[in-house]
Amino acid sequence: MERPRHQGMAKNTNMRWRLPLVCLLWEVAMIVLFGVFVRFGPEVDAHWEEEKKEMNLTSDIENDFYFRYPSFQDVHVMIFVGFGFLMTFLKRYGFGAVGFNFLLAAFGIQWALLMQGWFHSFKNGKILIGVENLINADFCVGSVCIAFGAILGKTSPIQLLVMTLFQVTLFSVNEYILLNLLHVKDAGGSMTIHTFGAYFGLTVTRILYRPNLEQSKDKQGSVYHSDLFAMIGTLYLWMYWPSFNSAISDHGDAQHRSAINTYCSLAACVLTTMAFSSMLQKKGKLDMVHIQNATLAGGVAVGTSAEMMLTPYGSLIVGSISGIVSTVGYVYFTPFLESRLHIQDTCGIHNLHAMPGLIGGIVGAITAAAATEDVYGKEGFIKAFDFTGVYQTRTPSIQGGFQAAGIVVSLLMAFAGGAIVGGILKLPIWGDAAAENCFEDDVYWEVPEDEESDVYHMHNPDKPASP
Amino acid sequence: MERPRHQGMAKNTNMRWRLPLVCLLWEVAMIVLFGVFVRFGPEVDAHWEEEKKEMNLTSDIENDFYFRYPSFQDVHVMIFVGFGFLMTFLKRYGFGAVGFNFLLAAFGIQWALLMQGWFHSFKNGKILIGVENLINADFCVGSVCIAFGAILGKTSPIQLLVMTLFQVTLFSVNEYILLNLLHVKDAGGSMTIHTFGAYFGLTVTRILYRPNLEQSKDKQGSVYHSDLFAMIGTLYLWMYWPSFNSAISDHGDAQHRSAINTYCSLAACVLTTMAFSSMLQKKGKLDMVHIQNATLAGGVAVGTSAEMMLTPYGSLIVGSISGIVSTVGYVYFTPFLESRLHIQDTCGIHNLHAMPGLIGGIVGAITAAAATEDVYGKEGFIKAFDFTGVYQTRTPSIQGGFQAAGIVVSLLMAFAGGAIVGGILKLPIWGDAAAENCFEDDVYWEVPEDEESDVYHMHNPDKPASP
Amino acid sequence: MERPRHQGMAKNTNMRWRLPLVCLLWEVAMIVLFGVFVRFGPEVDAHWEEEKKEMNLTSDIENDFYFRYPSFQDVHVMIFVGFGFLMTFLKRYGFGAVGFNFLLAAFGIQWALLMQGWFHSFKNGKILIGVENLINADFCVGSVCIAFGAILGKTSPIQLLVMTLFQVTLFSVNEYILLNLLHVKDAGGSMTIHTFGAYFGLTVTRILYRPNLEQSKDKQGSVYHSDLFAMIGTLYLWMYWPSFNSAISDHGDAQHRSAINTYCSLAACVLTTMAFSSMLQKKGKLDMVHIQNATLAGGVAVGTSAEMMLTPYGSLIVGSISGIVSTVGYVYFTPFLESRLHIQDTCGIHNLHAMPGLIGGIVGAITAAAATEDVYGKEGFIKAFDFTGVYQTRTPSIQGGFQAAGIVVSLLMAFAGGAIVGGILKLPIWGDAAAENCFEDDVYWEVPEDEESDVYHMHNPDKPASP
Repeated sequence: MERPRHQGMAKNTNMRWRLPLVCLLWEVAMIVLFGVFVRFGPEVDAHWEEEKKEMNLTSDIENDFYFRYPSFQDVHVMIFVGFGFLMTFLKRYGFGAVGFNFLLAAFGIQWALLMQGWFHSFKNGKILIGVENLINADFCVGSVCIAFGAILGKTSPIQLLVMTLFQVTLFSVNEYILLNLLHVKDAGGSMTIHTFGAYFGLTVTRILYRPNLEQSKDKQGSVYHSDLFAMIGTLYLWMYWPSFNSAISDHGDAQHRSAINTYCSLAACVLTTMAFSSMLQKKGKLDMVHIQNATLAGGVAVGTSAEMMLTPYGSLIVGSISGIVSTVGYVYFTPFLESRLHIQDTCGIHNLHAMPGLIGGIVGAITAAAATEDVYGKEGFIKAFDFTGVYQTRTPSIQGGFQAAGIVVSLLMAFAGGAIVGGILKLPIWGDAAAENCFEDDVYWEVPEDEESDVYHMHNPDKPASP
Repeated sequence: MERPRHQGMAKNTNMRWRLPLVCLLWEVAMIVLFGVFVRFGPEVDAHWEEEKKEMNLTSDIENDFYFRYPSFQDVHVMIFVGFGFLMTFLKRYGFGAVGFNFLLAAFGIQWALLMQGWFHSFKNGKILIGVENLINADFCVGSVCIAFGAILGKTSPIQLLVMTLFQVTLFSVNEYILLNLLHVKDAGGSMTIHTFGAYFGLTVTRILYRPNLEQSKDKQGSVYHSDLFAMIGTLYLWMYWPSFNSAISDHGDAQHRSAINTYCSLAACVLTTMAFSSMLQKKGKLDMVHIQNATLAGGVAVGTSAEMMLTPYGSLIVGSISGIVSTVGYVYFTPFLESRLHIQDTCGIHNLHAMPGLIGGIVGAITAAAATEDVYGKEGFIKAFDFTGVYQTRTPSIQGGFQAAGIVVSLLMAFAGGAIVGGILKLPIWGDAAAENCFEDDVYWEVPEDEESDVYHMHNPDKPASP
Repeated sequence: MERPRHQGMAKNTNMRWRLPLVCLLWEVAMIVLFGVFVRFGPEVDAHWEEEKKEMNLTSDIENDFYFRYPSFQDVHVMIFVGFGFLMTFLKRYGFGAVGFNFLLAAFGIQWALLMQGWFHSFKNGKILIGVENLINADFCVGSVCIAFGAILGKTSPIQLLVMTLFQVTLFSVNEYILLNLLHVKDAGGSMTIHTFGAYFGLTVTRILYRPNLEQSKDKQGSVYHSDLFAMIGTLYLWMYWPSFNSAISDHGDAQHRSAINTYCSLAACVLTTMAFSSMLQKKGKLDMVHIQNATLAGGVAVGTSAEMMLTPYGSLIVGSISGIVSTVGYVYFTPFLESRLHIQDTCGIHNLHAMPGLIGGIVGAITAAAATEDVYGKEGFIKAFDFTGVYQTRTPSIQGGFQAAGIVVSLLMAFAGGAIVGGILKLPIWGDAAAENCFEDDVYWEVPEDEESDVYHMHNPDKPASP
């Protein structure tokens, strides 16, 4: 049985031809572009046997696959289960959360392989890919998942695919500016992924402001079991974040260090989040929204500095602060953003990604500026910041300045890009739902008739009971 | 409180002595057979220190454990959480889905270690096992989990254990014929796991045809949260499938390549599945059944060719096609199979495993037949197809022919084996439930009294309310 | 809407100032202590390049990160998702199960890094950490998660933090006595983690005995979906247990062997658990409590011996026995412990950890005593038991004696420590709930108003319906 809709609903949310058209068009484009451009890199191609000899490698274990594949899989889980389930907290939007996240990420990783490939892995007219490209594609899509959090429940799947197309493009440009032109370090993506993704998403949701959104207010909350589903997402993000921040760091100590710094930061973040969640409530009760989100801020906030010599206690400090900032954000900033700035941020990405992302960029700049040969060792110092070639004269303080510039560039790209893409998404052709149908899976999904829903009808006399 | 049953129910589903008897008998058999046959392989045994010297290995990292253990764990998750939760979509069969899958897989891996060991790891009267054997045992059990999908909700746990015993045996024989006699490549098991497992299961469910199954039709659907539980299974299968297809490939480039081809195929598959799921519904709404299942067809369809030079765009094409075929299958073929051929396929394994498995076998045959020394490199060519010893004169086109023969053998083994095993399972001694009690955990499990079930009774006047 | 409480409730469970105070105080203490003591170890520090040369390592792959990080992540998942979700089986305590487990583990790993660091990684006034320390910290916290299982639903978060502080301390002392003074092998922690953790928790819950706990009996059960959430925990513990038992074993064969022995033991355990679960019920139905818990006993019971030459069939035997003992425990011992000994063991840790832990210690002692140079090889024998330095004259039978002594020490530490900590937790200042409010998230958490809860009220006339 179909739930009846309000008579006043004029919007056409039928996806029947539009969604297939977009999906198929884009998949065909991917096939063509992959056919023209994408090939296996030297460690993936069957010529590897010859490659090994040329590179003087004695063992297959030296293949980058063994250095990075376990981390890749952890990152992959974060993108699809982590972000997907984190957003299932809404009582009637679990299909959309996990399903649309699946859709946009599956498209995004293909497009990101191309975009990032043209910038970073382009040789003799071909993009040569390996496991590191897969990780970077997942990273890029991570920034789209973040932006999705701001508009969760308010957009059609087509809008999400359009946003993904543009955001992946802009992400890749921004990343190129930061990593290649500014020669900035950002292995865990505090700037490129979190700051950019979050402010991009916030700008988009500002442009898509819905004045009547309180019409679906009853659906913006959670139910008991939806909060438990969301905790699956939270915990997988939390547990695998050390893999996220270390996945593309240099082999050896850098990967090892990134993982440990992140582990420490996240552990500290849980305690300060719990403390402030309880403190900011009159009855001292813990709020699942904070536990699901603010506990992760510690991972965001060491995204730039984790591979540097941040040290374990430095990580604890950064994690502690970010947990506090994020929890305070949920209690005070989110209502303010909505009522004053008309920024409707469904998942509170301003608290989980935007502010901790900025903290991460700043901590990275400071940590870089404070680097010394004494702390890193002579070789370690050069390796850690890649002070070779044209950059061999860079000093730590100059590097710190460039790191700071990276934050500014990411912010500007996010605001400008978000404004343009928000404008495109505002066109009345994409099939988004009316305000009273937001946060409701029934609009885009075949939803099973639950026994509970009978009860729901009983208590809602304005809806007819099922036969 | 016990739910009342129909008075006409004559079947005895009490497992009290039968299930313990079967479990204990078989576990004792496993202990005896392991005691006689199974020993640690050279990389597992404490003599490894001496082994290392003999093999001129300088580092412990050369132990196969470090090449394959992360992939093994991913495969392990696929078998137990992936398949287990994928099948929890039914509203009242979650315990059976995840619990019986757990039971049959735990028995199956033990029996598979023996069966596959006798065929592939038998030296001086002993089966020498290592991490690769564990992966292969999980693979073998995967084919049983697939067959379980066809008969889900309609069989007793004893029937599942009996089926596992026979199916593992037949799987191992079929695998031996393909890999050793036909010298076929099938690292991800399109033929040995998916084609064989699916057609075996479909034959079994055909033999076990229940004409009155519509009596339990109300229980064959999902509820909102059961669909979310199923998505946990879907996503873990989807994310870890690159590990599945690469887990037993050769060290180095082959593992790397298998993972990347699979990643590409799966990404494309999601887009075409979404497109066709929307297109085939009048209202254009997405159907969770398709998203939960057809998105995975891309992994099945590159199971044979992933370790070959399929190339990224080749993978996108295969993945795109398999998503379409699988979704169309759910909409059109499944009802046809049920109404015309009396094949009651609970999970739709025909769409997720059988047809994509055939595609996988065919793509593998074509990719092998099209191989050239130019594309693979001289050494890579020999290594990829293991054209050594008696096989050194094999040409790609002959290999393609043998690959095709592998499909046929797998099909024949599946039909013949499924018919025999289906006949055995039809004996009236195994304690399966009557048609009106299918898809209902209450038959074999202690089920907690949910508050919702009170409501259920209120709305079903033919069932007495709880006191 | 707030659920009304019984008028007679006098206990103040408001956490508003107490919980933040404890969290912040302890996090500040962690930051100060980490600042003074904790530094990166040689494989984590940026000086690694120089270290590599000194150690004559030719490749970054020799960094311990690549030997242990995948196992670390598996263990991490076990602690946070495994234990966390395993305990969500209660119908209204899912937030507390997964949330408090998150809190205590996040604090515990920080304190464990310090405590274990002082005992095992202290050099020149600094604790030098690496990935192995992270694993050990997770292990240590595992013993706290076990103890949490006994008192689940009956304590405030502050009590859990206090318990964690003391238990981690005592764990580290006990571990030091066993590993360093007695020179005992216990890589998977049958004695140090399971025996110690379980008897510690059982002693604490005995001291905290609540005579009126039957007042919350209606909340001590599960609902259908809470049992499925718990199965997520079960399966992740089951699947990753091979990683748990092998995570800190020696590189090479020892890690490989630990994983395989554990895999075998767990597989066998599932069959005997299912057999006895069915056999011990009049109607032969399987009980989810057994499947969720007793299937894991096989991992506990080979915790000491997995890295030894237990052999695959030995593992099957140990796993089979532990599944039987654990299931029988749930049916007969748990009610006995509660009614006669006043031990209220919410999760039945006596059956899952205490008894299998003792079995594990005993099997370890026997396996060590039975070791011969013939079985292990000359070098393997010395390496497996670390019979070097002052221990080079130890014989297997003496080692077996020391192993047995390790069990006794662990038990004594658990009883004495549990008694003291239980006494501290009994102080009336920690904000625990009254008996009628146990097993109820509403006490410490903001709980969403479910539609179901309306129904609940309808059927419970003593509770007013929501407006």
